[in-house]
Amino acid sequence: MPNYILGIDGGGTSCRAAVADAEGRILGRGKSGAANILTDPDNALIHIVGAATAAFEEANIAPSKIGSACALLGVAGSNVGDAVHYVKERLPFAKADIESDGLIALQGALGDSDGAVAILGTGSIYIARQANDIRYIGGWGFQIGDLGSGARLGHALLQESVLAFDRIHPSSPLTNAVMAEFNDDPREVVEFARAARPGEFGRFAPKVFEYAGRNDPVAVALLHASAQTIDEALDAVVAQGSRKLCLLGGLAPIYRPWLAERHQPLFMEPEADALTGSVALAAKRFAAGGQA
Amino acid sequence: MPNYILGIDGGGTSCRAAVADAEGRILGRGKSGAANILTDPDNALIHIVGAATAAFEEANIAPSKIGSACALLGVAGSNVGDAVHYVKERLPFAKADIESDGLIALQGALGDSDGAVAILGTGSIYIARQANDIRYIGGWGFQIGDLGSGARLGHALLQESVLAFDRIHPSSPLTNAVMAEFNDDPREVVEFARAARPGEFGRFAPKVFEYAGRNDPVAVALLHASAQTIDEALDAVVAQGSRKLCLLGGLAPIYRPWLAERHQPLFMEPEADALTGSVALAAKRFAAGGQA
Repeated sequence: MPNYILGIDGGGTSCRAAVADAEGRILGRGKSGAANILTDPDNALIHIVGAATAAFEEANIAPSKIGSACALLGVAGSNVGDAVHYVKERLPFAKADIESDGLIALQGALGDSDGAVAILGTGSIYIARQANDIRYIGGWGFQIGDLGSGARLGHALLQESVLAFDRIHPSSPLTNAVMAEFNDDPREVVEFARAARPGEFGRFAPKVFEYAGRNDPVAVALLHASAQTIDEALDAVVAQGSRKLCLLGGLAPIYRPWLAERHQPLFMEPEADALTGSVALAAKRFAAGGQA
Repeated sequence: MPNYILGIDGGGTSCRAAVADAEGRILGRGKSGAANILTDPDNALIHIVGAATAAFEEANIAPSKIGSACALLGVAGSNVGDAVHYVKERLPFAKADIESDGLIALQGALGDSDGAVAILGTGSIYIARQANDIRYIGGWGFQIGDLGSGARLGHALLQESVLAFDRIHPSSPLTNAVMAEFNDDPREVVEFARAARPGEFGRFAPKVFEYAGRNDPVAVALLHASAQTIDEALDAVVAQGSRKLCLLGGLAPIYRPWLAERHQPLFMEPEADALTGSVALAAKRFAAGGQA
């Protein structure tokens, strides 16, 4: 039994940590800056320790005790061996495991029940759990995957706006608004798209939802097409046995009404957040002394 | 009246030139290496001059006469001002104009008639001419345009193969063959796609046609979807007045049977190739002393 356990949710914009007792009761929480182990592992380390220290301070535990804690981190890029190894070697905890950000989100959302989560943000990925079997579906990134994600939806909007400019597809207030942002010059769209990262395409996604709410026909068509890709992935998840579905990520609440009728009865609200999930996983893993 | 005119078709794999008399009668042809003014303007210059010299030699004209020739070059990237300026300043001809590779292809295909060409290769672009009015449609590149192109079709195949791997979409002999090429590991597809240039995606396009010929259901669906994007662009071209359509580019002959019934009566065989088109444009422009 460890003295303390730490759950850590390392995100691309901030890192959150929670310290708990050996049974997983949270005693304090802390937050710090970005923890991207792929693009900036050294700063990720600083922020992971910073968030953990802040959690100990909030719990009124001497930060010197950090060295005796057992930590479970959920981060993006947990499947990239080199980055995980680099960070894991340098963490100041008694024990530490690094898991995917998706897995701690699933644990938080579903608790210990079976089911699946769809994480719909800049990217998209589906994670299903049955007993101890975890399956990842999708999530292959913007270039050939992540259908239904904000990045792909924003990309589709730009493409559609240029098609409308060329009068190949109908224009609409939405496509006119997009082209106006680029001075009605497709070359500016091309220039933007050449350099844009997924997150920059994703910034156009909320516009699609906004205009779809006003029945803009292009927005509605784009959103139906995008929602269909999500429904198809959910069909695959359901076919593999999941009976509870939880939508997570920034686009989850606005996508939900656009998803198919057949999935609506399966949707449930998440029980808790990813940070809580990381604590629960840490408690299971380190209390049991084995895999959870 | 110039002594000689030169038509030059500068392509990404080779450069071809034809020397003609002032009336545009071709006297000799020559060929040399790649002429990509965007990525390698200095070698493009060498190959442009090399092809012209070879054409003069074939015509038994002293290559020293090159300096008195008026040349019209068709090249990719003719809309990129800096590259055009750099090359134009350094050409050893009496006069030279640089036009798009599409325009000389159109002139070759249609002669002096009105109509439109669809250039279906690694990229896709549509060019329509009515009297002296030239309109470009599409051709915005792989990232947000070029629908129906070989690159987009190959990309769609890779995406579909990963969707089939995830059991989100049905698999087929085609998707199985693609995944086998990547050792049945979507991460290898992701890795390939991250670095792939449009031409590398395009190398997968012939596979779609090949399997569609054997009624592979995924191949047929991908090809129908891709052909539909071409039909939609052709609809826009026809709506703007074109009554003759000419399909050009490496994929033209294999796409044609997949295109809509409504377009079949409008298709015509190209009258001549892009090199012949460049000579015809040069003859019109420099004999008339004005724009052609």
